[in-house]
Amino acid sequence: MGFPAVLADFAPTLRQGGLHLSTFCQFPDANVIEALAKTRLESFVLDMQHGMFDEASVLACVAAGALEGKPVLVRLPVDAGGLASRVLDFGAAGVVCPMVNTAEDARRLVSYLKFPPVGARSWGPRRAIPITGQTAPGYLARANNLTLAFAMIETRQALDNLDAILAVPGIDGVFVGPSDLSVSLSDGATLDSADVAPALDLVAAKARAAGKIAGIFAINPDYAADCAARGYSFIALMQDAMFMAQAADASVAAVRGKTG
Amino acid sequence: MGFPAVLADFAPTLRQGGLHLSTFCQFPDANVIEALAKTRLESFVLDMQHGMFDEASVLACVAAGALEGKPVLVRLPVDAGGLASRVLDFGAAGVVCPMVNTAEDARRLVSYLKFPPVGARSWGPRRAIPITGQTAPGYLARANNLTLAFAMIETRQALDNLDAILAVPGIDGVFVGPSDLSVSLSDGATLDSADVAPALDLVAAKARAAGKIAGIFAINPDYAADCAARGYSFIALMQDAMFMAQAADASVAAVRGKTG
Amino acid sequence: MGFPAVLADFAPTLRQGGLHLSTFCQFPDANVIEALAKTRLESFVLDMQHGMFDEASVLACVAAGALEGKPVLVRLPVDAGGLASRVLDFGAAGVVCPMVNTAEDARRLVSYLKFPPVGARSWGPRRAIPITGQTAPGYLARANNLTLAFAMIETRQALDNLDAILAVPGIDGVFVGPSDLSVSLSDGATLDSADVAPALDLVAAKARAAGKIAGIFAINPDYAADCAARGYSFIALMQDAMFMAQAADASVAAVRGKTG
Amino acid sequence: MGFPAVLADFAPTLRQGGLHLSTFCQFPDANVIEALAKTRLESFVLDMQHGMFDEASVLACVAAGALEGKPVLVRLPVDAGGLASRVLDFGAAGVVCPMVNTAEDARRLVSYLKFPPVGARSWGPRRAIPITGQTAPGYLARANNLTLAFAMIETRQALDNLDAILAVPGIDGVFVGPSDLSVSLSDGATLDSADVAPALDLVAAKARAAGKIAGIFAINPDYAADCAARGYSFIALMQDAMFMAQAADASVAAVRGKTG
Amino acid sequence: MGFPAVLADFAPTLRQGGLHLSTFCQFPDANVIEALAKTRLESFVLDMQHGMFDEASVLACVAAGALEGKPVLVRLPVDAGGLASRVLDFGAAGVVCPMVNTAEDARRLVSYLKFPPVGARSWGPRRAIPITGQTAPGYLARANNLTLAFAMIETRQALDNLDAILAVPGIDGVFVGPSDLSVSLSDGATLDSADVAPALDLVAAKARAAGKIAGIFAINPDYAADCAARGYSFIALMQDAMFMAQAADASVAAVRGKTG
Amino acid sequence: MGFPAVLADFAPTLRQGGLHLSTFCQFPDANVIEALAKTRLESFVLDMQHGMFDEASVLACVAAGALEGKPVLVRLPVDAGGLASRVLDFGAAGVVCPMVNTAEDARRLVSYLKFPPVGARSWGPRRAIPITGQTAPGYLARANNLTLAFAMIETRQALDNLDAILAVPGIDGVFVGPSDLSVSLSDGATLDSADVAPALDLVAAKARAAGKIAGIFAINPDYAADCAARGYSFIALMQDAMFMAQAADASVAAVRGKTG
Ligand SMILES: [Mg+2]
Ligand SMILES: [Mg+2]
Ligand SMILES: [Mg+2]
Ligand SMILES: [Mg+2]
Ligand SMILES: [Mg+2]
Ligand SMILES: [Mg+2]
Repeated sequence: MGFPAVLADFAPTLRQGGLHLSTFCQFPDANVIEALAKTRLESFVLDMQHGMFDEASVLACVAAGALEGKPVLVRLPVDAGGLASRVLDFGAAGVVCPMVNTAEDARRLVSYLKFPPVGARSWGPRRAIPITGQTAPGYLARANNLTLAFAMIETRQALDNLDAILAVPGIDGVFVGPSDLSVSLSDGATLDSADVAPALDLVAAKARAAGKIAGIFAINPDYAADCAARGYSFIALMQDAMFMAQAADASVAAVRGKTG
Repeated sequence: MGFPAVLADFAPTLRQGGLHLSTFCQFPDANVIEALAKTRLESFVLDMQHGMFDEASVLACVAAGALEGKPVLVRLPVDAGGLASRVLDFGAAGVVCPMVNTAEDARRLVSYLKFPPVGARSWGPRRAIPITGQTAPGYLARANNLTLAFAMIETRQALDNLDAILAVPGIDGVFVGPSDLSVSLSDGATLDSADVAPALDLVAAKARAAGKIAGIFAINPDYAADCAARGYSFIALMQDAMFMAQAADASVAAVRGKTG
Repeated sequence: MGFPAVLADFAPTLRQGGLHLSTFCQFPDANVIEALAKTRLESFVLDMQHGMFDEASVLACVAAGALEGKPVLVRLPVDAGGLASRVLDFGAAGVVCPMVNTAEDARRLVSYLKFPPVGARSWGPRRAIPITGQTAPGYLARANNLTLAFAMIETRQALDNLDAILAVPGIDGVFVGPSDLSVSLSDGATLDSADVAPALDLVAAKARAAGKIAGIFAINPDYAADCAARGYSFIALMQDAMFMAQAADASVAAVRGKTG
Repeated sequence: MGFPAVLADFAPTLRQGGLHLSTFCQFPDANVIEALAKTRLESFVLDMQHGMFDEASVLACVAAGALEGKPVLVRLPVDAGGLASRVLDFGAAGVVCPMVNTAEDARRLVSYLKFPPVGARSWGPRRAIPITGQTAPGYLARANNLTLAFAMIETRQALDNLDAILAVPGIDGVFVGPSDLSVSLSDGATLDSADVAPALDLVAAKARAAGKIAGIFAINPDYAADCAARGYSFIALMQDAMFMAQAADASVAAVRGKTG
Repeated sequence: MGFPAVLADFAPTLRQGGLHLSTFCQFPDANVIEALAKTRLESFVLDMQHGMFDEASVLACVAAGALEGKPVLVRLPVDAGGLASRVLDFGAAGVVCPMVNTAEDARRLVSYLKFPPVGARSWGPRRAIPITGQTAPGYLARANNLTLAFAMIETRQALDNLDAILAVPGIDGVFVGPSDLSVSLSDGATLDSADVAPALDLVAAKARAAGKIAGIFAINPDYAADCAARGYSFIALMQDAMFMAQAADASVAAVRGKTG
Repeated sequence: MGFPAVLADFAPTLRQGGLHLSTFCQFPDANVIEALAKTRLESFVLDMQHGMFDEASVLACVAAGALEGKPVLVRLPVDAGGLASRVLDFGAAGVVCPMVNTAEDARRLVSYLKFPPVGARSWGPRRAIPITGQTAPGYLARANNLTLAFAMIETRQALDNLDAILAVPGIDGVFVGPSDLSVSLSDGATLDSADVAPALDLVAAKARAAGKIAGIFAINPDYAADCAARGYSFIALMQDAMFMAQAADASVAAVRGKTG
């Protein structure tokens, strides 16, 4: 037997464009991922930017997903592209990079994530090899296809540079951060700018036209369904912490309602 | 300023008997407790028996509850009474001890949890003092009142010895484990024995007659409301993992329902 | 998909008696188990007695074995039977308990490891259910068969009580600790007593006669082959630390030999 | 109840300029911060540059300070500005950034720490919201005021560029590192250059003239009092390790003196 | 080169009876021990009873002491004698066991700590061998002499049984816990009973008469000097947390005094 | 007593050029280093690029090496030069930096590793001082000599710029990564390019001509001997994981061969 080769089909399938429901994970605990992996969620984005993940917990949680055959991606902190190659070595199926505002930002991201000649990723895919069920030469040959690079589009500048960003070889998709986009478009005034909605349509349309995956964070199921309708196929549906708090409050309310 | 003295009112209030909704926690991560502490749940029972808590995570998670002014209790592993005094030193508001089957078991539990002359707890309440807002002499004087000892009633033998267990000085309440009780009453045959329901009434009635708190684990809100109706006031409503998985699946279903 | 149900076939197969090569693990690091799981070793005994494992590392390392479809057992510390049920909840395939010197010791071990009516294990098999691919009722019905209880025979007293120990229902096998047995048989004089060899034959013969598995620690391959010839089928071959040090020294010697 | 909103008054008060006594923390252990938080020290600077803090320990130690209502700041490693936004999300009250030698360095620091339009901090203030007692929109509106950006002045180049650094919008204060300043001013020759003292006066005077906070590390109380006299109001008084070692040696000496 | 064999001279020297100044450690962080090991303190007692140590931190902190050639002992939790052999395997130089109230308690402690024929310690001294600079057979021969078993005398019952406890072979010394002794002698009334002082004299006298080491915890240097005068030679002088807090407060006071 | 001053002789000796056999370490566990340190390996390179090391495990493992008097180096992740000064503060004897492709890359590396006037390393060598047996001023004076900066040569671009890289003051040696070099020279086609061998000779020759240390990773003893013959003196011989897996498989094969 061996690793269940969880990663080998993920990226190719995602590129075909059916709706895929992932989620953002804040809790850096493999037990949480093991529990979530038993739900209908299809993959997990470990959040190293605003969540509590560090390298050790990413390492553990990639394995926790693999145990249930679910791929795990990582959102990087800002300005920490070097971590990108590291989490791929750990077996992550892809990377979501915040604040990719220019084509130069996108090229730098690709340089960490893709082997030559596309990028400059360094060899050492310790766990990525068994987790994809490849040999070493096979992994070298297929890795650029098996792993996903998402560029976050979440500023006015990124919107302005969207065509150039999408044109960077090695960028597999874009991923919209609605809150930061609102903050940027409103010059810091609001988390809920009316300028976000039209931007969502623009990003989805351009991504699809460029043959790239369109991804986004959705704060609730309605928002997710709306984004799907707008053309987003890779949706991070809520967060682990939201799920937990929401059901806890609903359950307390249910008991209090019955026991009046 | 100082610690918010989260513990000082908890036990006295609980003894007055209003319905209190706690929960069992499996995930040994302070971030999870911080998140749960923002919900309407009123306290947390960190599970060292079937959950993943160890001493280090209990230590961290008692602080996480305290940060929101919520008390934290601990369910011990079997045969690990020595941990009882340890978690009280860490600031836990009480202990739920599994498999208390005899008055002797109950006395041993008390010996770990209560200072002389009631028990033989050793002095060293490092964090318990600030967390209750006491001086050292004040804590010595009040600690036996401020911390709670729950004896789990979850075997036929425990039911047989219930009067004797309830009569042990220092036992503040009983806590029913429905699954183990079913396994015991059915000699290992089922998790869902029809003999459990009448036993629940018996335990609640005897506990109240003895002036002790009646506690129980409830697998869902309906079960909790039913237990409240039977006379249970300290209810561990579901588990962190259940909340999270339930809402995750419901959210995925909602999106899939809308996106057909 | 789901957990690869790594445990479900292990115990039944082991009971059939073919030679099974496990090893003792000292290093409490999931990366070590992931690496070892890619070798021809068939299972791992995490050593909580003389190795560096604690609950958190056992929890992580059971998953690391499962990732490669390899079962993981745990050697308990002395006098910590309560941990036995805990590690089974974590998904361990069995427990090796040191210093089982009397039938009473054996019965106490069984009480932690087997559900009623054989023992008094408490219900809460969090990860044991997915790791064996069972439903909850299915796990209750089959768990006593799926998990293994090994009693360590490593003192003169244990040899004297061997028949009674082997007769305890729920004991699945015995496991010899040659060093402690030598210390005991020599009253503390030597790690290498000549009285050990005949004792090895005695234990293997009695175990097989009682229909129980005979296990032992083997310090090197020759010793392992010798034990197999004596009738031992479950052999913990060396330790992680030994493998590593041995190959490191051999590799250095090879380089120094060539570069003289 | 809720978080004690420890941060909301800290920065405004500090800007008013009274003497504030903080300290540098090397030990990455929440228990240490809990203990120190009970002393008269008013805040803590967790040292990720020369101390042993990493992200996980910063996360835990911000909570440990909050438990006593004490704010926690973080000194970043060199060239790790991305961590700045991360520790603010964790609830840190401010950041001390080493080696800010140019206005460009200062602008980059601000970009990580302040929301638009001042900087480009990304939205996701998970624990910063409860720790300051704000709503999400309220935090967006007030965060640039509630959190502090200190630029370390510790090279000849930084002294040369001091006016420009102080003029960067979003820089709340400067913080002098006397040892590095001495090393720089002496071209690596000494930790104790005579050129440091006049530089201290210069930095304090220029900071106050620019309406910015003047901060410094003080190796002992005399040095701290001297710095206060020179115009420094935010003083990191010694280190956790110094306190501990100093009192340990004094206590041993006291016993040896009496028992001669 | 190799381990500095830190343990080999410690126990023999301590048995000769000169005043030895150790301390209790609450902070489970190797960096703290590394820092303390550079002071004049001569050894460290890691507190697993009322401090925050667990197995992993004991393992790390024994090494931290060894790095400076300082021995490390461990105070066990109550009812956790099995840990005793474990920490000796990790290289601890001795064990302080709380609440040894009867000769039977003392014999049980010895059974965990001493190899046959004195006790029943199990073989597996992984780090104890290099840390004492022995071979395996040499360690077996000398271990019972190289490691120390301290029985805590801290209840009325223990005083009553003192002669019997001191007579148990393998008990190397007694160790008084003044607070618990006061609580016991006052039936829970006070931490500062007047009955403690005469008991201190009694314990020291009887220990010396029995040729055993007399140890005690001292809350400050005066108390330590007083205990030394009463005949105590192994003194745990204060705690890491006390040292740190005391010097922090004194340093703040010094600055405030000068800047008034 | 004190730290064994493990570092003070390492760099000077290595510069004299005899064959030194180190190894790459993937397992972030101090127990692994303690075990390896008892073999004939002479130093350890903790791999933060492709191994599982983070700051906390580097901190612990430097101490583990020191306990046996063995120096520990660190391979950095890509683009994380700031970590370089950090691990030197922790007591690392040197740094191996991946992907140093230009003289500018080399100068940046030196800026993190060497004190002024050679570089811009910041003062705070917490553990580096005791581990080298220096005073603070002594460490400042000698540190640039005591610690080693290795620039990894592993791309075509690096080969092209080799003279310029070797000419950067503060670069103590080069270190070849054969796999990445093959990937680069073959534009991503193979891990085993025939162009690597001549490049090895070139690098060794130029390094020696420049008076710098030539280092390389060797996948097995034959490769190591070949590299030594080509002029490499600092060889990282295999990896911890390779040693362990190799001996485990060989041992299983030996047993199976005898019991077949
Ligand atoms: Mg964003
Ligand atoms: Mg139960
Ligand atoms: Mg044994
Ligand atoms: Mg500095
Ligand atoms: Mg005591
Ligand atoms: Mg490389």
